[in-house]
Amino acid sequence: MNVTIHGRTQHYRTVTFDRARNSVLLIEQRLLPHEFKIVAAKNFRETAAAIRDMIVRGAGAIGATAAYGLSQGALAFRGNDLKKFSAHVEIVYQTLKSARPTAVDPVNATNGVRHEMARGKTVAEKQALALAAAEEFANEDVHHCEEIGKYGAKLVRSGMKILTHCNAGWLAFVDVGTATAPMYSAQKLGKKFHVFCDETRPRSQGATLTAWELAQQKISHQIIADNAAGHLMQRGEIDLVIVGSDRTLGRTGEVANKIGTYTKAVLANRHGIPFYVAIPLSTIDWNLRRGFDIPIEERSENEVLGAWGNNAHGKREFVRVANPTSSAYNPGFDVTPPELITGIITPVGIYKPHELWKRRSELGFTG
Amino acid sequence: MNVTIHGRTQHYRTVTFDRARNSVLLIEQRLLPHEFKIVAAKNFRETAAAIRDMIVRGAGAIGATAAYGLSQGALAFRGNDLKKFSAHVEIVYQTLKSARPTAVDPVNATNGVRHEMARGKTVAEKQALALAAAEEFANEDVHHCEEIGKYGAKLVRSGMKILTHCNAGWLAFVDVGTATAPMYSAQKLGKKFHVFCDETRPRSQGATLTAWELAQQKISHQIIADNAAGHLMQRGEIDLVIVGSDRTLGRTGEVANKIGTYTKAVLANRHGIPFYVAIPLSTIDWNLRRGFDIPIEERSENEVLGAWGNNAHGKREFVRVANPTSSAYNPGFDVTPPELITGIITPVGIYKPHELWKRRSELGFTG
Repeated sequence: MNVTIHGRTQHYRTVTFDRARNSVLLIEQRLLPHEFKIVAAKNFRETAAAIRDMIVRGAGAIGATAAYGLSQGALAFRGNDLKKFSAHVEIVYQTLKSARPTAVDPVNATNGVRHEMARGKTVAEKQALALAAAEEFANEDVHHCEEIGKYGAKLVRSGMKILTHCNAGWLAFVDVGTATAPMYSAQKLGKKFHVFCDETRPRSQGATLTAWELAQQKISHQIIADNAAGHLMQRGEIDLVIVGSDRTLGRTGEVANKIGTYTKAVLANRHGIPFYVAIPLSTIDWNLRRGFDIPIEERSENEVLGAWGNNAHGKREFVRVANPTSSAYNPGFDVTPPELITGIITPVGIYKPHELWKRRSELGFTG
Repeated sequence: MNVTIHGRTQHYRTVTFDRARNSVLLIEQRLLPHEFKIVAAKNFRETAAAIRDMIVRGAGAIGATAAYGLSQGALAFRGNDLKKFSAHVEIVYQTLKSARPTAVDPVNATNGVRHEMARGKTVAEKQALALAAAEEFANEDVHHCEEIGKYGAKLVRSGMKILTHCNAGWLAFVDVGTATAPMYSAQKLGKKFHVFCDETRPRSQGATLTAWELAQQKISHQIIADNAAGHLMQRGEIDLVIVGSDRTLGRTGEVANKIGTYTKAVLANRHGIPFYVAIPLSTIDWNLRRGFDIPIEERSENEVLGAWGNNAHGKREFVRVANPTSSAYNPGFDVTPPELITGIITPVGIYKPHELWKRRSELGFTG
């Protein structure tokens, strides 16, 4: 999407590949929203570190980064020995896979690249196929988000006030994003609307990343405390809710997403406000049979006990907010049941949650 | 309640009066939870400033502070001239009343003291009556909170997990508090339970004040992000919700309280979890006919855009968390409708919200 720095507007993807330098180029997301910087991961170990250290985060974005990382590692191999090449690629693969052990996207992405590489007969052929597969993976990610935008834009009418939670924007994918895709598409169609961004404690991705995205795209928006959405709905100030999802159960239509999503779904339901979830097909889990069985990551209590931000001197700092002798409990995700979800926006259309399983063949189910 | 400093435990009230020095002694609440300090307001202007600058906050606490401030001002008068005394007291009254213009408690409290003073025939008599009235006001506040505790403790069973929002604890009153009173009473009865404190963004009174109170009283507790309560309820981890109220409509049973209270009530209702509101009778508004008409204070956007806390060097600092080019919307309160409220805990018993008006005479309605 567009980013304006010092008055100059340029188009960026979250992750791209520099063939000449065999480097993965990434937006340094840990500096956002206070600083915009592109960093180069110059070898596959740096690329794995960038995933691990969350320079890049978000399902689609880390998938594409890992795919590029695998081809980057493959391209760095010198020689024609297929056996040695294979052993080298295995190291690259394991390194990238273990960067975020619980994430499924780097695994799927790198498996896809390896699958394509198998078609090559020489090292050079395999290297070329790897890069082509990584590029294809990244382009597909963008295309899927654009398709989500195309379907989702129909839900957005001029004058609407839209609520979103956390960041399922273009920074979480290669470009465009999922929950934000309908907004960007609607904007292109000339529709005018206002977005409320939940700040999304404890990590504040709404206040930092989503707000930054919307500001760059010149979409009217305001940040609200997570506590305020209920009051706004009660006063008729929210017409539509769109969120992303980390994992959607294909068999039940349950949606796991950032902590607080369930609360917003319960509130929207009470007020008769449409609640949509935008997802790429890759986040559908066709195996799990109960949302209760989705593992909920328990994160560091420090995230709840304080906040990261810029101090008066522009220096990034952590401040301890909470009582020093108290501890915190910090579940990272929650699960929203299908009866609270108006529709699931996918790259191939909008579905009712309970339709996913019935229409699984068109949704990419291959089990 | 008890406060332990350097291993020594002592009993404190939020506000007390030092007759010898004609000073109002206050817990400096802006330093909590990182530092515990008693400050002396040495004349009525300092007392008014303490209310204005929020050294002391909370309905009962600022009421008692204003009552003491009025008697402090009266006691500082030298001479026997009743007319001059009257003019002086009027200045004291106006100064205290205007310290927090929208708060009703300082007005009610100082009116009560003035009413008592009218019974005196000499300056000395009026001065003595003023101090007695202020002491009576503070003691009544404590007594009412204890009575809330007595009724509310019956709702608390051993093993329970209790959710509370914001701070309606002893720091908001002269002692004991409202939402916390049932917890302190239950603890005295030997009941064991666990409290989840909503951090209560944007001002984090749950993470700072309530958590500090519970830690001092050695009550098992954890802080959670405001986003987490829904998930906890879904997993059966919350058995009871108790909150305070800034204003309760006697005619409808609607409850205005800190932003986010309504959300917790909606969630509790969905999960069949009892939702109680603890209030002193002074916060019942017998006039207003619709909760929609309760003015909702719109507070500074900076509260949402960042956070106050202690940095690594122990220095109190504000950090800007949010995107620098985005703005925020920050309503301070919301209104919970009676159908979401299981009961209202008052100093004279527990009532269904719709019973308030029917039983208004026992609840102190004099209109």
